[in-house]
Amino acid sequence: MDIKRKIEIANEDTTNRLIQGDPVLVDIAPAGEVIPGLEDRMVLHAGPPIEWDRMCGAMQGAVIGMVLYEEWANTAEEARKLLENGDIKLAPNHHHQAVGPMAGTITVSAPVWVVENKAFGNRAFTRQVEGRQQFGDYSDEALDGLRKWRDVWAPTLTIALEKLGGLELKPIIIQALQMGDEVHNRHHAASSLFANKMAVGLALADLPKDAVLPTLYYITNHHLIFLGLAMASGKAISDAAHGIEYSTIVTAMARNGTEFGIRVSGLEDMWFTAPAPKIKGLFLTGYNDDDAGLDMGDSAITETVGWGGFVIGGAPGILSLVGGTPDEAIAYTREMRKITTAVHPTYLMPALGFVGASMGIDIRKVVQTNISPIIDTGMAHKDPGHPIIGAGLVRAPMDCFKQALIAFGNKYNGR
Amino acid sequence: MDIKRKIEIANEDTTNRLIQGDPVLVDIAPAGEVIPGLEDRMVLHAGPPIEWDRMCGAMQGAVIGMVLYEEWANTAEEARKLLENGDIKLAPNHHHQAVGPMAGTITVSAPVWVVENKAFGNRAFTRQVEGRQQFGDYSDEALDGLRKWRDVWAPTLTIALEKLGGLELKPIIIQALQMGDEVHNRHHAASSLFANKMAVGLALADLPKDAVLPTLYYITNHHLIFLGLAMASGKAISDAAHGIEYSTIVTAMARNGTEFGIRVSGLEDMWFTAPAPKIKGLFLTGYNDDDAGLDMGDSAITETVGWGGFVIGGAPGILSLVGGTPDEAIAYTREMRKITTAVHPTYLMPALGFVGASMGIDIRKVVQTNISPIIDTGMAHKDPGHPIIGAGLVRAPMDCFKQALIAFGNKYNGR
Repeated sequence: MDIKRKIEIANEDTTNRLIQGDPVLVDIAPAGEVIPGLEDRMVLHAGPPIEWDRMCGAMQGAVIGMVLYEEWANTAEEARKLLENGDIKLAPNHHHQAVGPMAGTITVSAPVWVVENKAFGNRAFTRQVEGRQQFGDYSDEALDGLRKWRDVWAPTLTIALEKLGGLELKPIIIQALQMGDEVHNRHHAASSLFANKMAVGLALADLPKDAVLPTLYYITNHHLIFLGLAMASGKAISDAAHGIEYSTIVTAMARNGTEFGIRVSGLEDMWFTAPAPKIKGLFLTGYNDDDAGLDMGDSAITETVGWGGFVIGGAPGILSLVGGTPDEAIAYTREMRKITTAVHPTYLMPALGFVGASMGIDIRKVVQTNISPIIDTGMAHKDPGHPIIGAGLVRAPMDCFKQALIAFGNKYNGR
Repeated sequence: MDIKRKIEIANEDTTNRLIQGDPVLVDIAPAGEVIPGLEDRMVLHAGPPIEWDRMCGAMQGAVIGMVLYEEWANTAEEARKLLENGDIKLAPNHHHQAVGPMAGTITVSAPVWVVENKAFGNRAFTRQVEGRQQFGDYSDEALDGLRKWRDVWAPTLTIALEKLGGLELKPIIIQALQMGDEVHNRHHAASSLFANKMAVGLALADLPKDAVLPTLYYITNHHLIFLGLAMASGKAISDAAHGIEYSTIVTAMARNGTEFGIRVSGLEDMWFTAPAPKIKGLFLTGYNDDDAGLDMGDSAITETVGWGGFVIGGAPGILSLVGGTPDEAIAYTREMRKITTAVHPTYLMPALGFVGASMGIDIRKVVQTNISPIIDTGMAHKDPGHPIIGAGLVRAPMDCFKQALIAFGNKYNGR
């Protein structure tokens, strides 16, 4: 069998695994209890591996935030010293079955969503999504959101989820795609549907009002609460499609704010990286282009499985956040068809006549067409200490795909 | 001042009132306690006035259903006799500050949504929306849904609503229009958002689990629960714009399954009617075009205030229910701009670049352009005894608008 045919078979398998992925929320638990290899005095971060001194400002701020949150240090100065001395371990989420939004920082005591891919049995983990600490803000107010999640919201939801016996996420994602969500940065519908389900779980549990009420307020007013669930779903789906020999399909796109990295199913756990690109988008009041950090976060796992920028044509509501016109959004979505292996049979977009989401990014097609995956994303400040400053659109750097294709040739040619 | 200028001023006033309408859910209560003029042994129905023997099959079936539900008769035969003998009064919802979906039947013991237009102080009422009795099905199973609403769901929601101190509906409608609802037959988003608000109300109330749980299941799984709220909102909004001298703006479109009728702000409570049109659409399994009754229901009050068919271009998800393509849907929505007086400042459609909903149907523009309002709607059987059979699109009959324009001339010319 020639290599072309081997790739064809491998990619079909990879694509089918991506299509069949069936994420179910099975638990919410402290990261240290569930994430393999996560140790005390260790901070997981977004993107490919990176050392403290090469981290961008926002990621440094977020890491400092986690060190303070875990009370490994009492001041930002102390935290910074620990980090400079290498007293805190750093590792990418992706090396621990996890993903995280923006800086993506996860530490032992932070409760994470535990999502199981029921079709293949593997699990993935993501932290809570909020608008401050994960963007580099380590103020006490920012950390207070993490503490409320740890002490009230997450434990309460854990009990509600137990009462429900887990929660199937694929049906919610399918519905949300027909309700104007693109399942990366717009989660109005999915979050609302999720809250509907959890409200039932909370009613089933016999919990005190002072746990139920703040939790209900939190989940019914947090338009992005489903982002964490979408990311864990994306990771659980793509991990089950990773490690297939001869496959040229991308199984991770992730950024640490300094570098953009991709992983490919047939290329083991190698990262192919390029400098993180600048985002083109809209800024929140008080911020402008000069403040912007570079592309950051594991959230591009959603584009990796066919959501986000890949279905933005079906979710024009997000354009008020990221900029652009409905026609441009539809054009992006149609363009992604050219670099992917399939359209999903149930992730449908009404605005495009109920066509399925394009998915299965093929590094060969990306290089051949010179069309790079489009990602919609939040924006962090270039310096530590700030909350979210805006959102926009960005293209994955072409160089990552070229490097991957060369590595693929090196590995498989002449075998 | 010439008549043209008087009309201009009147229409501006009417339009502003439609724009400012601010519907708030203030109560859920048995119809007999809140609807002015609703008596015992009286059935309110959709559309313009109609006598029993001219009612279509579906409406007759629905009226029989209400007579059985109120236990004014024990069998359909008994009910039919009472109705034939004139022992049950019949009156249009619109004559009682009310509207109703499909046959639209309301009787004393049926709990109704009570919506107040906070901008002007007037109230409107609508019954529960379901898929059987309101379509003419008077089986015991169909009536059981009405009984559960009366005995469990409505009383429980009433207490939850009290705890919330009422519920603002305009913010939900604004959000839903950006989440793929057209706020007539697609209410996935609005219903989900509504359920989340009510879940908080239920948690605030100290109610037994056997009331809370079935009610939460009901509201979190009823994709059309918001239709009743949208209809009462539409009626509350349009009533506040009714009765303005010299105004040529439509304040009601309603159908009884036999006739389609409109009312105009400057023409008091006159109805201008034409035969109810046939609907073009899609059928549920087991039904076809030969089964279809004609256009029925007060739900076109939603189009009257700028939702439904008028914003269908922003809600392509509904096309799986009513048929057609996204391009056709956008064309309908753009076309409605030609027969209306304004675009709403906050009812925005992302798919059309965040343009506002066209609203304020001007009978002069309809006649001049020969463009009739487009309505998306459910379909009932032509015979009594059936649940919903499909959904589709329909145009308001041009003749209603021509008659109204002639009546307008007769009333105002030469004054």
